[in-house]
Amino acid sequence: MQHILILGGDGYLGWPTAMYFSRRGYNVTVVDNYFRRNACTELDVGMLYPVPTLQERAKIWHEKTGHEIKVVIGDLTDPEIMRSLFNGRVKYQWAVDHAFTGIPDTVMHYAEQPSAPYSLINYKYANITISNNLLVTNNLMFALRDYNRDAHVVHIGTMGEYGTPNIDIEEGWLEIEHKGRKDRFLFPRQASSLYHTTKIMDTDLMWFAVRMWNLKITDLMQGPVYGIETGESEVDDRLKTIFNYDEIFGTVVNRFITQAIVGYPLTVYGQGGQTRGYLNIKDTLQCVEKSVETPARPGELRIFNQIMETFSVMELAELTRKVGRKLGYEVQIKSIENPRKEAEEHYYNPAYHGLLDIGVIPHYLTEEVMQGMFRVVEEYKDNIRNDVIFKGIKW
Amino acid sequence: MQHILILGGDGYLGWPTAMYFSRRGYNVTVVDNYFRRNACTELDVGMLYPVPTLQERAKIWHEKTGHEIKVVIGDLTDPEIMRSLFNGRVKYQWAVDHAFTGIPDTVMHYAEQPSAPYSLINYKYANITISNNLLVTNNLMFALRDYNRDAHVVHIGTMGEYGTPNIDIEEGWLEIEHKGRKDRFLFPRQASSLYHTTKIMDTDLMWFAVRMWNLKITDLMQGPVYGIETGESEVDDRLKTIFNYDEIFGTVVNRFITQAIVGYPLTVYGQGGQTRGYLNIKDTLQCVEKSVETPARPGELRIFNQIMETFSVMELAELTRKVGRKLGYEVQIKSIENPRKEAEEHYYNPAYHGLLDIGVIPHYLTEEVMQGMFRVVEEYKDNIRNDVIFKGIKW
Repeated sequence: MQHILILGGDGYLGWPTAMYFSRRGYNVTVVDNYFRRNACTELDVGMLYPVPTLQERAKIWHEKTGHEIKVVIGDLTDPEIMRSLFNGRVKYQWAVDHAFTGIPDTVMHYAEQPSAPYSLINYKYANITISNNLLVTNNLMFALRDYNRDAHVVHIGTMGEYGTPNIDIEEGWLEIEHKGRKDRFLFPRQASSLYHTTKIMDTDLMWFAVRMWNLKITDLMQGPVYGIETGESEVDDRLKTIFNYDEIFGTVVNRFITQAIVGYPLTVYGQGGQTRGYLNIKDTLQCVEKSVETPARPGELRIFNQIMETFSVMELAELTRKVGRKLGYEVQIKSIENPRKEAEEHYYNPAYHGLLDIGVIPHYLTEEVMQGMFRVVEEYKDNIRNDVIFKGIKW
Repeated sequence: MQHILILGGDGYLGWPTAMYFSRRGYNVTVVDNYFRRNACTELDVGMLYPVPTLQERAKIWHEKTGHEIKVVIGDLTDPEIMRSLFNGRVKYQWAVDHAFTGIPDTVMHYAEQPSAPYSLINYKYANITISNNLLVTNNLMFALRDYNRDAHVVHIGTMGEYGTPNIDIEEGWLEIEHKGRKDRFLFPRQASSLYHTTKIMDTDLMWFAVRMWNLKITDLMQGPVYGIETGESEVDDRLKTIFNYDEIFGTVVNRFITQAIVGYPLTVYGQGGQTRGYLNIKDTLQCVEKSVETPARPGELRIFNQIMETFSVMELAELTRKVGRKLGYEVQIKSIENPRKEAEEHYYNPAYHGLLDIGVIPHYLTEEVMQGMFRVVEEYKDNIRNDVIFKGIKW
């Protein structure tokens, strides 16, 4: 039975990934230090509904399905915690089989501070973002170098690494011809937040490790994810993933739906011309599954652009308004001064066929899909706090 | 009087830079936490001769020249220490005028862990390298953002950021044409050590800060530096800069000369085909001076390639043997298995005219120059420990 280790297993994507693989017969271990939950408490940004601890969720999952998701609570910036996952010294906070010390075949690396605004609140949060993201990645690289070079790493990168270049965005790599000579390089990257810059650095760290130690890594350059429910969350309502609707941790579609429901005008920065690629949380699960099933080769840093379609922010706001109005909500769109420094209008033409080529079948953000999200968020309408939606963190 | 702040002012380049600007009428403050000295002690890699503390050196400099170099001892990964240099809360360990709180016009940023082998001793040293180099750079960016966006930063990068691409290396930037469209990007970079990778990340951090906050930064992509004496070290023998001759902190020319003198065969990795660009420590001083005199513009990340000529490692070994033999030394060259993972033969054609264009007049590594270095190192022959020269740190 393949053993999958999920770093950052408590997060918006981590927990659904854990259930997804567990249900499909994989042996799953999740690791988290509750960074995201603690940050939400510290910054007082409420979640849409309370979520049980990781240990509780693993227990519920086991009771309902008979599947075991082992839980390690620990800070992966501590190299000894990271190494314990590969050298047989692991300690579980929850497990059925506490004696299990199997070395992972696959490592899903989600263990990062994931928010651009968080990284720019001030210098302290900037440093936390840098330290957390780079030390976790580096600790993983050295643990693999020292204990398990055969494991396949699937890392969640971000489309934000590329920024908005004036040339077509390829999937990770670009052949460059210059003065009559050629070479192949990582696609040029320049991000518009400090968080996104740490993801560029992650890629550089992983590319170094791949070249030096023949590691096998897949880096998934993901766009903003929307959605709540996955096949597995239907097993029990308490298994739904973390859902933020604030400016710091909430992604844009999730936020807009929440704002529409409470009558908070949709906050569009400037004219809303910024175009990005998006995907449904169900497709994140498909993408990582297909990546795990067809791993990178030794010495390969394989990069896929993990988006299913592109929208401008204004298009998303208009879709939210349209769906909201059909459901009886009076949805306003409000253009506010962009607190970020980014181009109002820009060229954006990313390639994203690699994941389709290995078998992913996209979900699209239709009116029906968005309506389904409205229905779930509505159930928790009374929990929504208007004061946490927008604070205007400036770049 | 222009105020220059030198971060990493105790180092091989930092201290000579401090004296250089002090003698030329600049108001100079140096900051260091003795990271390099402490690392040399911890790893037991001796220096060629003992060097007084930074406070002692500043006192000697003041006694001999009447010039004041203010000294702050502190760890710049602590953001409060960094910010104190810009917000009037600075505390000097040594100064004539302790009340001075002038905001720097120029910041020389040398405060980095500078060794590739150090960064790959093991995972702990890898993490120290990442944390030190990136947090210092980030703390500097945020201090400038918050207190002084007009300061000009001169950062020492490394030619190692580029690696050995199969295309000509330009000075920092490359216009790329792709599918009929064009954009200008940072030159593609992929380094062959973890240390060098942190310097790529530094450039990314600085480029982010320049775009977001209109900072003015010059990044000097420097090759390995050789030499001991500068115009200012002649003032007093105790003012000579730190000189390492070991594999971890010693640069290749300095090491080879030391090895030649004690009859330790010159350690050439593989066939010694790796070609790099080199410069004399006197030219580092010229380069930073010219960069300071003609600062980058607001919103400009200006990049120069700071090398004066290129050599293969075997060419350097042969030059050392030739000069050594003239001086009566029996110099052997020994090819050893390369402990690093790097190409034995590779294309290497870097541009390096930007610094010449702003007035730098190169010194070259002639037989006479090398003979002068032999004469200085000979004086300390009895201090040289053969056991620290080569330990074979593997990548």
